[in-house]
Amino acid sequence: MTYCIALRLKEGLVMLSDTRTNAGVDNIASFAKMYIHESDDRMICMMTAGNLSVAQSVVNLVTEGFENGGGKIQSLANVPTMFGAAQLVGEAVRRMFGVHGEAMKAQSVGFDVSVLLGGQIRGRGMRLFQIYSAGNFIEATEDTPFLQIGEHKYGKPILDRAATYDTDPNDAVKLALISMDSTLRSNLTVGLPIDLMVYRRDSLKVGLRKRITEDDPYFRALRESWSKALRDAYRVIPRPDWAS
Amino acid sequence: MTYCIALRLKEGLVMLSDTRTNAGVDNIASFAKMYIHESDDRMICMMTAGNLSVAQSVVNLVTEGFENGGGKIQSLANVPTMFGAAQLVGEAVRRMFGVHGEAMKAQSVGFDVSVLLGGQIRGRGMRLFQIYSAGNFIEATEDTPFLQIGEHKYGKPILDRAATYDTDPNDAVKLALISMDSTLRSNLTVGLPIDLMVYRRDSLKVGLRKRITEDDPYFRALRESWSKALRDAYRVIPRPDWAS
Repeated sequence: MTYCIALRLKEGLVMLSDTRTNAGVDNIASFAKMYIHESDDRMICMMTAGNLSVAQSVVNLVTEGFENGGGKIQSLANVPTMFGAAQLVGEAVRRMFGVHGEAMKAQSVGFDVSVLLGGQIRGRGMRLFQIYSAGNFIEATEDTPFLQIGEHKYGKPILDRAATYDTDPNDAVKLALISMDSTLRSNLTVGLPIDLMVYRRDSLKVGLRKRITEDDPYFRALRESWSKALRDAYRVIPRPDWAS
Repeated sequence: MTYCIALRLKEGLVMLSDTRTNAGVDNIASFAKMYIHESDDRMICMMTAGNLSVAQSVVNLVTEGFENGGGKIQSLANVPTMFGAAQLVGEAVRRMFGVHGEAMKAQSVGFDVSVLLGGQIRGRGMRLFQIYSAGNFIEATEDTPFLQIGEHKYGKPILDRAATYDTDPNDAVKLALISMDSTLRSNLTVGLPIDLMVYRRDSLKVGLRKRITEDDPYFRALRESWSKALRDAYRVIPRPDWAS
């Protein structure tokens, strides 16, 4: 599996993905699942979950571009809006289904891909989308500033409680790392290293891009403090008065 | 869905289940999923997840008893060991599959049931089993003192971090409630009220049985302190030094 989390905040975007892929427990490898397109007038970041071959093909298709009606080659480099970028990714997913869907079904492999797509194009708003296997998509709003793909359940409680649209991006980095840590601990199919991207609204370039490994001193300290905080917090809560 | 959690500790058993069942989001009801058999020489507690009709039939079958080889009617009331009780539940699951499996498949309804079975019979050890849809089962050990069925992912991180075989049952009640709270918050298909059972080793009777509703002052306070503790804990963690 995979776990990717993206937050769209007042001041920016925070996106975090793991790198584990597996085809059974004895065939595990690390693959980046974060792809960034950066050019003069735009910063677009994609993270993928699901079947790796499908996900990589979709990423290639929207990066290289394809003829998408009107006779022009459209790609992330020239799509005019983020909404258009989401439509382009959705169309790429459907084309991949057209190419591989039948054959995968014949091999009893589910056609399964989902994409988090965040970014900004000059003169336009900063947006975050989640694209499904059917190519349809939803957008993060101020009410629900985060979107998750892959193994999202373990890391959801802390986000439900603490992530708001007004959260500072640096605090959101902590939240995303805590959410990832909960997932890493409880599910073996999600694995280190992890890839982090932070974008400041209207900057049109990546603010921070970092690969976090097992040895990263900050991430280690965060994991330890979080574990300790959870244990302490539960100890501090008094026992029920109706218990013996 | 459902969420049930059971812990087998040095000093006792703690079992907790929600009561929500649903057939689509517009058809929601409360059903107890915890069943206790208590008699002179035994205390046996069962919690079920999965298809409610199958689960209730399995519970009825092992409560009323059935002929299970050797010409005698076997039930939870007369099975000689907890291992035998787990075998009995497994056999009941297989019989229900025999009766309903084909017809359910014809209606595209999955045959899906799982059971947590904990208890003790006089002169025997206190044991905890998880029985699967195929009637096979596993047992909790000192290494992994808890078992979960249903929507188990949201509430697993706190258990992974804090639950050990030596945890006091009163503290385990807190852990189970925290784990349930995480699930209730993040997943609508799990709902209040919840049913709690605490058993002290070698007592052969239920130590505490309690239905916890929305209005329970202790559970409300626990939910609030836990939320606050999580938010505080994440705030206290310093921001990464490599962040802007």
